[in-house]
Formats: sequence, structure tokens, C-alpha cells
Amino acid sequence: MRITLIGSGNVATHLGAALKNAGHYIVQVYSRNQQNAALLAYHLKADAIDDLMMVSAETDLFIISTSDSVIDSVASQLAVHQKPIVHTSGATPIQVLLKYTEHAGVFYPLQTFSKIREVNFSMVPLCIEGAYEDLTAMLKELAYTISSNVSEVNSAQRKRLHLAAVFACNFPNYLYNIAQELLATHQLDFNLMRPLILETAEKVQFQLPAKVQTGPAIRNDKNTMDAHIHLLDNEPVLKEIYELLSQCIIKMGEGQYRVE
Amino acid sequence: MRITLIGSGNVATHLGAALKNAGHYIVQVYSRNQQNAALLAYHLKADAIDDLMMVSAETDLFIISTSDSVIDSVASQLAVHQKPIVHTSGATPIQVLLKYTEHAGVFYPLQTFSKIREVNFSMVPLCIEGAYEDLTAMLKELAYTISSNVSEVNSAQRKRLHLAAVFACNFPNYLYNIAQELLATHQLDFNLMRPLILETAEKVQFQLPAKVQTGPAIRNDKNTMDAHIHLLDNEPVLKEIYELLSQCIIKMGEGQYRVE
Repeated sequence: MRITLIGSGNVATHLGAALKNAGHYIVQVYSRNQQNAALLAYHLKADAIDDLMMVSAETDLFIISTSDSVIDSVASQLAVHQKPIVHTSGATPIQVLLKYTEHAGVFYPLQTFSKIREVNFSMVPLCIEGAYEDLTAMLKELAYTISSNVSEVNSAQRKRLHLAAVFACNFPNYLYNIAQELLATHQLDFNLMRPLILETAEKVQFQLPAKVQTGPAIRNDKNTMDAHIHLLDNEPVLKEIYELLSQCIIKMGEGQYRVE
Repeated sequence: MRITLIGSGNVATHLGAALKNAGHYIVQVYSRNQQNAALLAYHLKADAIDDLMMVSAETDLFIISTSDSVIDSVASQLAVHQKPIVHTSGATPIQVLLKYTEHAGVFYPLQTFSKIREVNFSMVPLCIEGAYEDLTAMLKELAYTISSNVSEVNSAQRKRLHLAAVFACNFPNYLYNIAQELLATHQLDFNLMRPLILETAEKVQFQLPAKVQTGPAIRNDKNTMDAHIHLLDNEPVLKEIYELLSQCIIKMGEGQYRVE
């Protein structure tokens, strides 16, 4: 397929590489920033543009991987070409595109991307939505050329997935950061924590998290929790996080608390 | 070495297996519960006992892997044999053992263990403390027979490590549980979340967490955060967690917040 990438951030970079490697032809890469456009276009053997007026109609699909706030205005400018337009956002409903084109879809890779780190795209869940059946089928076919993990997900479900991903990814990463800072202030190496972090994530690859919860809260070990809270006397925010999450885990242990 | 295991829980099970595999001789396994003692003793080709009066003095080391609350009373009963006694707890200072014996130490494996899951012990950080130099050296030597990741860590540092481990392991696992429940209530498969969880943990194996933070909060994307909070209208506790952690990440992004 001939594909035009709008955006040059983390998602555009990794998705573009995966599509290129699967044999697709990347026509153009657009970024407001000409340097960013040129860098990604160079890797993808595509043309770089920094003006949406220069977009070529000789393409089969526009993929918008910009920040959520500009998807609307970008889509309004691309619609004139009457080609399918998808975005890659977890948080944006398909309706934003449907305002401008009937050929609207979503191609949402449920993964965390950093430019500095390679991602094995073949394992990345791709959540597909199309405005009509033929478009959905076309997008799924494209998705299967780069990943074996493809699902149809509507906008309401995708919003929920995106919320869950914040709990499963962004918040844990921030908690890793707290751990790292707690160690650094006592000259302890974060390497001591890394195997534990990895094992915690690996455990839930085959188990449900509730089945493998460990630590003082699930045992309702008040002595240890009190000692920990005392260590956080000078860290009111960390103390608040510790107490709030521990209370939840204690309730989980008692079987009281369930998300409705 | 001849080693006596006091306890038959997750740590005793995995540590016992690693020691046995490294060629050490497990003399006895004690548990209050005779069946638990017998099961682990069977795997370790050791004798099972359910009464501390039956402990044999023909051993080189007692390893106490019980719950924290009984370490004190167990140690008081083992001291009569005048053999080295270590515990495996992150939260308990060496002083608890020093009340009863000068041959006191700590052998703390910094990992999360479940009986249902094999652990590659050779990567587990072992945090060692001994009451005197020769004992520390002996414990480090023993530790190196089962792991390549051995550190000397005193009781104050170990307490800090244990606290950090709660933030890096127990709390993230609970957040995975929230994600799983958020999906389950909308008939979405937790498998969609698993690659993301693993990648999040793998990312920080070579980077510091602060360098790879992603998500709406670090971008200070208020629209997305507001939409998420709205989705949690009927989940006041989840909303509180979402708001608290997001505020912290926003501050991290602004470079304002640091653990003192």
C-alpha cells in the first residue's frame, strides 16, 4: 500500500518503520518541523513535507499520528483528497474524522513507544475501527501485515482501553520513578530494583494480577506498613500514595472492593 | 553447607530449591503445619519437622523465612544451638536476632515469589548483612553459589529497599489489577494490556523511569485527563488514584517534584 504519515513523533516513527519493513511504500512524511519530517522521511525513503498544502493525493491511506489536539484540523485539510484517513490515538473518537470524510478509521497501537528503543511490532496489539465494513477489512488486512495481534475495537471501548493503559503503564512507570528516587537519596543502586520490576510484569503475563499480589498490604501486615509510613514522614505526597494504594490492596485482600 | 530452613512459604520454597540445586544439603524443613513442612522437605530431600524442639544442631546455618511477626520467637528458640541464624525479611532489622545470638545475619532476596512460578535465582539480587566480618563473608560466599547479584546492605538500607520495592512491585501489580477490572467490565480482554505491561517494565531495565515517562499527564494533556476522570465518575477511589498520580507526574514533567 501507498501510505502517507502525518506526524513524526514516537508512534509515527515506530509505525512507519514497521510498515516500511512489511513492504509498504511510505509516500510522504509530514511534520510542522521540517527537520523532524526530513529525519523520519530519510529513514523511510519518503518525501518530507512541512506544509499540508504539499500533501500528494497519490496515496492509499493517510495515517495521522499527531498530538490529539490537532487531529481535527489536520483531518479537515486532508479530506479534500477523498482518501481513507485514520488516526492512531487511543483517546480520540472516530467522530472527529467523520466530520470531514466518510472514509474514516482508527489504527491504534496499544503500546508505549520511545524513539530511543526498538519495539517488536509483531507483538503490539493493534486496535482497528473503520467507518464501514470494507474500510475495516482493509485496515485489518494492513494491520496483519505488521502484527499478529489485531482486534476490532469501537471508540467507546478504545477510550476504556486507553484509560486502562494509563493505569497499567504510565502510573507503574511513575511508581518505578518513586522507587528510584527513594534509593538514590540513600546511595542505593536502581539496579537492585530492576529484576523485581521485570518479574512483576512477567508474572501477570500468564496470571491475573489479583492472583499474584504480594507485599505487606495484601497480608494486612500493619507493623510493616506503619514502619514504611514512618519512613515517609518527610514525604507527604508519597505517604498519601502509600496509604491510598495500601488501603485498596487491603480491601482487595478482603474481597470487598471491585470495579463496577 | 548444611542448611536448616525455618518456614515453608514462597521464599523458603524458592530459596530452598536454589540452595539444593547449588549442591547444598538441606537438613530439615520446619513449618507449624506438618503437611507444608512435609511437601517442601520432600522436594528438598530433607527431614520435615513441625516442632522447633526437634531442630537438629547438626547444621551450619538456620535460615528463618517465616512471616515477620514470628522471627523473634523463632530466633529465641534456635539460639541455644549456637549456630549462625539469618532471616530473609526486608522489613526486619538484624537487631531482632542479635537479642539472642551474636551469630546473626540477613539473607534478603529482593524479588517477588509465588509458588506457582519458577524464578531464575541467578538474577535475584541478594542483600547480605552479617553481625561480624567473618559471618558476612561466609554469607556472601553462600549467596554467590546461587546468584551473581550479591550486595552488602545494612538494616537501614534494607528497610529503604523494602519500601522502594513496595512502590516498584506491589503497587504496580495492584494498578495492573485495576486495568484488568476496567477492561473486564467492558468485555475487553486483559491480553490487550499484557504486551504494554511487559514493555513498560523492560523499558526501565536500561533507562531511568523519569526518562521514559509517557501518557497524558507528562504531556499535561488536560483534555485527555478530564475525559478519563469523567469515565471514572462512578469509581471515586479510582478517580482519587488517577488524580493523585497524574498530579505527581505533571509536577515531575515541570521538574518541580523530587523526593528529598
